[in-house]
Amino acid sequence: MTVRFGVLGAGRIGKVHARAVSSNPDAKLVAVADAFADAANALAAQYGAEVRSISQIEAADDIDAVVICTPTDTHADLIERFSRAGKAIFCEKPVDLDVERVEACLDVVEETGAKLMVGFNRRFDPHFMAVRQAIADGRIGDVEMVTITSRDPGAPPIDYIKRSGGIFRDMTIHDFDMARFLLGEEVASVSAHAAVLVDPEIGEAGDYDSASVILETASGKQAIISNSRRATYGYDQRIEVHGSKGVVSAENQRAVSIEIANGDGYTRPPLHDFFMTRYTEAYANEIAAFISAIEKGTPISPSGADGLVALQLADAAVESVRTGKRVSVD
Amino acid sequence: MTVRFGVLGAGRIGKVHARAVSSNPDAKLVAVADAFADAANALAAQYGAEVRSISQIEAADDIDAVVICTPTDTHADLIERFSRAGKAIFCEKPVDLDVERVEACLDVVEETGAKLMVGFNRRFDPHFMAVRQAIADGRIGDVEMVTITSRDPGAPPIDYIKRSGGIFRDMTIHDFDMARFLLGEEVASVSAHAAVLVDPEIGEAGDYDSASVILETASGKQAIISNSRRATYGYDQRIEVHGSKGVVSAENQRAVSIEIANGDGYTRPPLHDFFMTRYTEAYANEIAAFISAIEKGTPISPSGADGLVALQLADAAVESVRTGKRVSVD
Amino acid sequence: MTVRFGVLGAGRIGKVHARAVSSNPDAKLVAVADAFADAANALAAQYGAEVRSISQIEAADDIDAVVICTPTDTHADLIERFSRAGKAIFCEKPVDLDVERVEACLDVVEETGAKLMVGFNRRFDPHFMAVRQAIADGRIGDVEMVTITSRDPGAPPIDYIKRSGGIFRDMTIHDFDMARFLLGEEVASVSAHAAVLVDPEIGEAGDYDSASVILETASGKQAIISNSRRATYGYDQRIEVHGSKGVVSAENQRAVSIEIANGDGYTRPPLHDFFMTRYTEAYANEIAAFISAIEKGTPISPSGADGLVALQLADAAVESVRTGKRVSVD
Amino acid sequence: MTVRFGVLGAGRIGKVHARAVSSNPDAKLVAVADAFADAANALAAQYGAEVRSISQIEAADDIDAVVICTPTDTHADLIERFSRAGKAIFCEKPVDLDVERVEACLDVVEETGAKLMVGFNRRFDPHFMAVRQAIADGRIGDVEMVTITSRDPGAPPIDYIKRSGGIFRDMTIHDFDMARFLLGEEVASVSAHAAVLVDPEIGEAGDYDSASVILETASGKQAIISNSRRATYGYDQRIEVHGSKGVVSAENQRAVSIEIANGDGYTRPPLHDFFMTRYTEAYANEIAAFISAIEKGTPISPSGADGLVALQLADAAVESVRTGKRVSVD
Repeated sequence: MTVRFGVLGAGRIGKVHARAVSSNPDAKLVAVADAFADAANALAAQYGAEVRSISQIEAADDIDAVVICTPTDTHADLIERFSRAGKAIFCEKPVDLDVERVEACLDVVEETGAKLMVGFNRRFDPHFMAVRQAIADGRIGDVEMVTITSRDPGAPPIDYIKRSGGIFRDMTIHDFDMARFLLGEEVASVSAHAAVLVDPEIGEAGDYDSASVILETASGKQAIISNSRRATYGYDQRIEVHGSKGVVSAENQRAVSIEIANGDGYTRPPLHDFFMTRYTEAYANEIAAFISAIEKGTPISPSGADGLVALQLADAAVESVRTGKRVSVD
Repeated sequence: MTVRFGVLGAGRIGKVHARAVSSNPDAKLVAVADAFADAANALAAQYGAEVRSISQIEAADDIDAVVICTPTDTHADLIERFSRAGKAIFCEKPVDLDVERVEACLDVVEETGAKLMVGFNRRFDPHFMAVRQAIADGRIGDVEMVTITSRDPGAPPIDYIKRSGGIFRDMTIHDFDMARFLLGEEVASVSAHAAVLVDPEIGEAGDYDSASVILETASGKQAIISNSRRATYGYDQRIEVHGSKGVVSAENQRAVSIEIANGDGYTRPPLHDFFMTRYTEAYANEIAAFISAIEKGTPISPSGADGLVALQLADAAVESVRTGKRVSVD
Repeated sequence: MTVRFGVLGAGRIGKVHARAVSSNPDAKLVAVADAFADAANALAAQYGAEVRSISQIEAADDIDAVVICTPTDTHADLIERFSRAGKAIFCEKPVDLDVERVEACLDVVEETGAKLMVGFNRRFDPHFMAVRQAIADGRIGDVEMVTITSRDPGAPPIDYIKRSGGIFRDMTIHDFDMARFLLGEEVASVSAHAAVLVDPEIGEAGDYDSASVILETASGKQAIISNSRRATYGYDQRIEVHGSKGVVSAENQRAVSIEIANGDGYTRPPLHDFFMTRYTEAYANEIAAFISAIEKGTPISPSGADGLVALQLADAAVESVRTGKRVSVD
Repeated sequence: MTVRFGVLGAGRIGKVHARAVSSNPDAKLVAVADAFADAANALAAQYGAEVRSISQIEAADDIDAVVICTPTDTHADLIERFSRAGKAIFCEKPVDLDVERVEACLDVVEETGAKLMVGFNRRFDPHFMAVRQAIADGRIGDVEMVTITSRDPGAPPIDYIKRSGGIFRDMTIHDFDMARFLLGEEVASVSAHAAVLVDPEIGEAGDYDSASVILETASGKQAIISNSRRATYGYDQRIEVHGSKGVVSAENQRAVSIEIANGDGYTRPPLHDFFMTRYTEAYANEIAAFISAIEKGTPISPSGADGLVALQLADAAVESVRTGKRVSVD
């Protein structure tokens, strides 16, 4: 079976997914849609696909699944439309920045029985997958403490910051999902601190650039997240899981792993520059998992509910920073 | 000049300091005191010192300085006595488990003009000293985020736990001091989570064995501490400081750094088994710094005030766990 | 421009190159040839290519270049045929196991002006390329000592051994080429030791499984090669170049870089299992370099002459083992 | 029992051994001899020992053992004198630069039944000891290939070079001994290359500064040694032993193991600056082993014979470079 795809949005992440679809032997990229005709044409031409409008893709008989890479504020609407159109849906995170809007959208997904996967790409990174597998294999016993270090090489443009929903909903949301992925138990409470240390303009936009979060589950397992919008040495993405029998960790990745030594010391190159190079394999694995779940009719993960819970944790972190209290999560 | 020492307490840590004193070319171990005659005799014999009572040491003309290694509940009294006796004092942490008692004791130290050093040994670890030097040299720019991982290989006996003042005052107190040592700015607020994951008996004793703490300074710098009373792989002692220009870290240490590879992978030995082997150099450096400060008449660091502030942070962490609130520190 | 390819040989390495050609946006896989119809059909079908005979490919107007992945004893003949047919030729190493046959073949290449690239894939490994770039950038000053560690995870079947030309012509030949790639000066003399330590059957077949080689250039630069047909921990592929100003090295690679620590120590997974996974990027880069050189009309490297010199070094090593003498190379 | 020592020679290495003796609870430093009275006085005063002449030490009733740290050309004579005087003897390597002189000296040692230990300090490095223990424990199966990288941070003064016996007898001799220590089987043949790459003055003095050596045992086990008189990044001392079941290695050591990351990459400090700091523990362990063997009456290792064999291997390497032949060793 070949899963036939439409890609909505031909921007940076749309290109990543178009390539992943095209390279997958079980999938075919049929159509690309984008409000900018040039972008749509270029991407379609590269992979021998057609340019179509979103409505045309919605109505198409020769398309089984869509990848939603449009701006965040269109995600929930498009999920609803394509749920009703009977397409399988892969949507970049987040579903929406508003919890109530997400809940309403997921109601439609449930009513229509649509297949929805939310783009938490890091779950598909081979190193992080191996960490989770080590836990599943009992290599570290019961999970006790998770540590996630997640720092962007630099802050995005202020315009992006303003529309982003803030650091917790835009950036930490990936770490909230990763913490859930690793803890194996739902988070019960959240404490967060946040500050502006990198760029005062970020503060003027009402956001933070440096944050620390503690998550705790009902049984007392704890996760710590350290975030910064600055890392001079590249895209810093580390996880460590401490358990009753041992600890498992995934270190940072770099494109080239040579080392040069001289009188100044031993130097290895900086890390990957950002997510496009760091998570190349993760993006391909993610789409492959989506395709495989469609083909086999197996449950899709991460689901819309996973997207919702991560957003709720982000909201709890925002509230914790504001109130100075540990915030309970249902 | 030779600084002449009396060591009070011939237990495990007393032995460490007796050796450090004896090996130091600028010091001489004159006397050892211990309620257990056998312990005092053995230690005195090993280094050619005399056995004396605490009162005799207090009154001795041939002793310039004492190292207090007696049980915690005697520290404050002994500091006061030896302050009045005009001796320089090195006291193992903590001065006392009660902030008011510490304050009263430090009043006596101030009145008498006594020299008092508190035993935060980790400040003298060569690796951690190099981290701090890198910060001082501007290698990472302004400090933004500190991460401290501190896990004991195993929990102490329940009897010890009961007298310890709890995990924050007994174990995390070292990390509070290390955070202050690295942040370069006083902590303004504390959020803490804690749980019993290692041993239910610890919970029954009213304590925790797994804790996560966020510290924040007035300007928004943040420190994260992760503590556990369990680490199957050895004594886990890591620090990382993230700044505006880069990051500096000190990794774990092991006695022997070989690697064996076979079909199971590449394996390096576990870490040092505990503080006695991990901080050997730190203990020697610490006593050397104490002796040097006495000889040169320079200020002593870490001081009694450093001990007090670390205890206040511990109290704040206890309160944060209890109330679920971020606790301000003056 | 699109370079149109025929792939000769649909075995293991033929598949690697067919994928590399198909994935390259500047190339098109037109035809596949293999004596085994099933193999040819399967590979052609996978990439939408045709099955043709070698003669058909030779005569085809719609094919610009061929990739020779047939058995070694056919390489020289095929290079000559396709040189005369005016095709660009990528040939897996070696051109032939006999130096005179190689020289005769390269004469034909020269007469016909054919473009010939020899498949020393390791030159295109990103890590090794970065080592060479570091040298070219003057990061380590003048090259003095090269160390190459190259160990296969296990010995090939005895039948393969018997046809292989022996360890120096089959396995070390890659290391001879890598040494030349890094030394920046031709090798003037060779000393080699070799023994049978892994499998007596290899000795009975007249070959060795464990070898050590020293190469020296006219100016005294030295390269050391350590080879074994056994490495329980995976495919061991390391290089180090020591120069007047420093040293640069490329460490081993593994598929997944996690670490698990417990009472047994800190363990990372074994290395890649063999060249197919270790050199995935190298194979793709190699074909891309071939295509680029065809398109731009730039010189091709590694050339037939590079293949010849590596074989001469292998012959010198064989002679050194046999005679117990340092063997000069012209 | 306390072993009473005289130290002959109060130079750099004499100081190292005087400290090791003084710190050892089972030994006592009784006397120091040196042709330079100031040097002898200073060292004696530091450890509360007497200054005596060599003859006085030879005749002394209160001295059980001597440590010979005088110039190389006095070693053999002193060993003979103190053998006859009935003292246990620790002698810095080499016994002599001439094989026949060494043999004559060892004859005297044998006749007199003297205890003689030769100072191959690296055997007592804790990391290298752990490598050997891993082999002894069967962790890597049968030893097959040993790789030793040994580079000095810089060349010694030309005057030293001239009296040194050449790189193989002065520097590589340690690596010959280490190879024997790890191979577990005597070396049967040697091939060596050597050149002048670091400093032409070294060549003018008739010596080399860069050398590569292959050693092979009767059963075909091989050891490779890479030497240079230059290493800009510190004192480079690595060993790796490859066996039938796995590989064990000991990496380089540094005084402080921090890492700083920024836009230039991840940098760890250079290595130890030279043997005095790199092998601190080894020197202490070495003297402790000597004392222990005296006390227990157990065989002493490394013995005079070990010193002799290492020198024979050095001579073989010299001959191999000169003749271009693999040189057999009895």
